Amino acid sequence: METALQTSPFIQGVEYLAIFFCGMGGGLAAVRKQYDMFTIIITAWLTALGGGIIRDVLLGAVPPVGISDRVSVLTALAAGCAVAVFHPEVDKMKWSMLAIDALALGLFAVNGTSKGLMYNTSGMTAVFLGTFTAMGGGLIRDILLNEVPMVIRDRHWYIMPAVLGSMLTVLAWRWQARGAISLQVEMVLDIVIVLLVVAMRICSVAFDWQLPGAVPRSR
Amino acid sequence: METALQTSPFIQGVEYLAIFFCGMGGGLAAVRKQYDMFTIIITAWLTALGGGIIRDVLLGAVPPVGISDRVSVLTALAAGCAVAVFHPEVDKMKWSMLAIDALALGLFAVNGTSKGLMYNTSGMTAVFLGTFTAMGGGLIRDILLNEVPMVIRDRHWYIMPAVLGSMLTVLAWRWQARGAISLQVEMVLDIVIVLLVVAMRICSVAFDWQLPGAVPRSR
Amino acid sequence: METALQTSPFIQGVEYLAIFFCGMGGGLAAVRKQYDMFTIIITAWLTALGGGIIRDVLLGAVPPVGISDRVSVLTALAAGCAVAVFHPEVDKMKWSMLAIDALALGLFAVNGTSKGLMYNTSGMTAVFLGTFTAMGGGLIRDILLNEVPMVIRDRHWYIMPAVLGSMLTVLAWRWQARGAISLQVEMVLDIVIVLLVVAMRICSVAFDWQLPGAVPRSR
Repeated sequence: METALQTSPFIQGVEYLAIFFCGMGGGLAAVRKQYDMFTIIITAWLTALGGGIIRDVLLGAVPPVGISDRVSVLTALAAGCAVAVFHPEVDKMKWSMLAIDALALGLFAVNGTSKGLMYNTSGMTAVFLGTFTAMGGGLIRDILLNEVPMVIRDRHWYIMPAVLGSMLTVLAWRWQARGAISLQVEMVLDIVIVLLVVAMRICSVAFDWQLPGAVPRSR
Repeated sequence: METALQTSPFIQGVEYLAIFFCGMGGGLAAVRKQYDMFTIIITAWLTALGGGIIRDVLLGAVPPVGISDRVSVLTALAAGCAVAVFHPEVDKMKWSMLAIDALALGLFAVNGTSKGLMYNTSGMTAVFLGTFTAMGGGLIRDILLNEVPMVIRDRHWYIMPAVLGSMLTVLAWRWQARGAISLQVEMVLDIVIVLLVVAMRICSVAFDWQLPGAVPRSR
Repeated sequence: METALQTSPFIQGVEYLAIFFCGMGGGLAAVRKQYDMFTIIITAWLTALGGGIIRDVLLGAVPPVGISDRVSVLTALAAGCAVAVFHPEVDKMKWSMLAIDALALGLFAVNGTSKGLMYNTSGMTAVFLGTFTAMGGGLIRDILLNEVPMVIRDRHWYIMPAVLGSMLTVLAWRWQARGAISLQVEMVLDIVIVLLVVAMRICSVAFDWQLPGAVPRSR
């Protein structure tokens, strides 16, 4: 079974790219803490594919893509090897990494949601699955390295764009299922959603947009 | 499939109440660390429903209730929103929160065990599932916020009442299955078990009852 | 279904021994932090059987052995009780514990891989499952106790022997499946692989063999 996005080889290619750069980001965190090669590679792999592993376990789609899809796994492992060599360069590409991370956020949210819908989950369940796919990798990476997860700590928009993107994906899917739009239009909409998530995440960091915390009241 | 407890609308209502207050407790932990709205809501949801998610994954009952049962999910999300506004009040209700947390411990243990038994697991497996349902949410919350989990740290009775309650639930179930007691009596017994767990947990904190640690011996 | 190794009662016995000592190691970590009896026992159980639980969830073999196989569970719980009494002795057996931990690493890797293969996973998936089985328990223990996991931190060989052992197990399985070797020879090979993993882990600590980190380059 393939999601609307995955019917296009171009989008497939972009997804492997997202896995690769997402893995590089994960590996970099391990490089910074001076861990050894195996830890770097394992961290890269879990960051890139951990979200999908959570999604597949929650869906009962086992064994998960993250340990069974050869191209995804090799892409993630290659990212770990690459960052072990090119870490100074990756470290300097601060804004590029942010953009790539945002791209992964959007792609993983849309694809995770679509996979849920293909397994006939309700829209609500699919939104949870899309959100987990998008934020799971970073969550696992930070738990592994014993830090407060970035998705928790970061006051810029992170989970919110993923949730919104997942919701919009459900809408697009439903329109297509009702015949209101064709599969091609759904694919275009999915791409627009990915770009929207990317834009929200990047703007939020660039312009320091923050979500409010709890309503401030004296205790 | 419904557990004995769930055949009663009253108990169902109490369970949603437990989810709600359990979620408020989880969200409060995020409010205290000054995280943003989305983190508060996600933490509330995972605290309230994370134990059940672990149970369902271990049972293969996917997608888990925690991402597919509309009322439970909305209750947990509403708890997150509520605590973002009413955190000063929740923060003051120290003993009430303890009582509600204890109620959730008991309800989740009994319901988790019953769900396992309904899936034809052995009694031992059901006890593990009940215990996980009861303590899983708090475990996930503390791992997310990068703290030593309360179930680990707290020297008052926490896991123990849950294990005991789960064991008694297995007994009640077996009596009913053998025809020794009716479904109504089993439901009454289940309620007694919940109250017993609540009483054990509260008394343990109130009277500072602690479990012994390792046998103290000079090294 | 049984793996090649499990057809031998001798190997079965050794595996329960590995579970027992692995559990003692986990419980000891909780004893050192002065936690109570229930925490010690739960930590022992999760350290001994957590890797297999992850493997079974990823395979969809639910409920996992770690909560359903009576002998394994009782062995792990007994280990927790034992270490609560004999912690000074266990603490002194530093090298013995290392050897036993290494034995568990090897046995869990070979058995985890074999179980994956029996469920008709690809070789790559089986290697991941074997590796997770071997390192999962320690991972869970350290996440529970809120420490950087030893598999991440330890610069001596840890994940690497497990990965290598899992790969060799896949080879042995394939030779047997093609009729190149008999089941008996496969079992002997499996034992050799376990011993190889043990030797690699122990030598790495004894002679301070370390894996290289990232390629050192000025930033």
